[in-house]
Amino acid sequence: MWQLYQFPLCPFSRKVRLLMGEKSVGYELVRESPWEQRDEFLDMNPAGRTPVLRHSQRDVSLADSNAICEYIEETVEKSPMINGTATNRAEIRRLTAWFDEQFYGDVTAPLLFERMHKRLIHRAPPDAKLLREAMRRANVHLDYIDYLIDHRSWLAGATMSLADLSAAAQISVADYLGGIDWAGHEQTRAWYSMFKSRPSFRPLLSERMEVIAPPAHYEKVDF
Amino acid sequence: MWQLYQFPLCPFSRKVRLLMGEKSVGYELVRESPWEQRDEFLDMNPAGRTPVLRHSQRDVSLADSNAICEYIEETVEKSPMINGTATNRAEIRRLTAWFDEQFYGDVTAPLLFERMHKRLIHRAPPDAKLLREAMRRANVHLDYIDYLIDHRSWLAGATMSLADLSAAAQISVADYLGGIDWAGHEQTRAWYSMFKSRPSFRPLLSERMEVIAPPAHYEKVDF
Repeated sequence: MWQLYQFPLCPFSRKVRLLMGEKSVGYELVRESPWEQRDEFLDMNPAGRTPVLRHSQRDVSLADSNAICEYIEETVEKSPMINGTATNRAEIRRLTAWFDEQFYGDVTAPLLFERMHKRLIHRAPPDAKLLREAMRRANVHLDYIDYLIDHRSWLAGATMSLADLSAAAQISVADYLGGIDWAGHEQTRAWYSMFKSRPSFRPLLSERMEVIAPPAHYEKVDF
Repeated sequence: MWQLYQFPLCPFSRKVRLLMGEKSVGYELVRESPWEQRDEFLDMNPAGRTPVLRHSQRDVSLADSNAICEYIEETVEKSPMINGTATNRAEIRRLTAWFDEQFYGDVTAPLLFERMHKRLIHRAPPDAKLLREAMRRANVHLDYIDYLIDHRSWLAGATMSLADLSAAAQISVADYLGGIDWAGHEQTRAWYSMFKSRPSFRPLLSERMEVIAPPAHYEKVDF
């Protein structure tokens, strides 16, 4: 059985979980708080980041969410998520990186720092100005998603792909932390609502991070 | 003909150039200074980053260095650089991400900001304390490379891979900017010296970024 080292609000672990869910790959969760820098965890991933995916019977240990997703895509045929022509695949990977890097850096990372790390580690209140700036940037990103969905069925093309999973993973964490204002983003809202009802997404939405409660609309498919 | 939008000290463009060089794919360079945020460039890559790879006759435009490298790997058979079993390929991708993210964030990015952006854009001197910190971190990264080469022929396994190209690209920019102290890193030095003599690497080493001169040892194979 695969073991996924993660914590409930890690957007990169959520991306991997959505992919494994879509492909019906079973796994068990192992709770890891990477900020504690456990020696055994650093041995598995010197970068000190979640997720790490292990299979002790097969002696396989994988780190880096992108390397993990490519591995799952290569080894599990069901529901291909990096598919199409080489150009299609490049567009999927470009947008996956966009959400993993730009959306994360602009929105998810500051929200996690202000609302989670400060509370759990520093016992300090969030900086309201930085929260507003993250929400403003989230709005710009949602405009871009609206634009993509105006032109395509799914974010990277005609079929659901890893780009959609990466975007949904980041947005779900930002939404949990109260960082998304859905007003004026009907395309993205419809796309995300459909996502929320998928069996791969339901288990993620029902989990909670201790001490931090999501807004009332967070788990609802109709929001 | 492929056109690569880049500037001489962009480590991600260097990674793509090393890959195209190893695979003998021809291209011409187009100079792009991403900090100028040209509208036409942002149209090609909303992330506003180099490299972008275009082929106007084929109507292909690719952004994100990782998406570009995977595209080249998929479409050009010669000299596979993401090869081996699925586990080998995951290790290549993990280490490629390590150099693209950790080494870049710890070493290359602060060096580029202090020594290039400050000079070109802000007309300000570098912060000596931040430069020392970047060099200290470079030393830790070189220890990790020494460790990898003690255990393997190449960084990610038995053959040269994208992980080696990514590492060499980051190190070459850090070295240009005077951020690498080679003392005590004989394994990494030997590996990098071999790299410097490769035909894929020679054209990169002979280029210069205006205003900024590299140290005397930068271009030498024997340093």
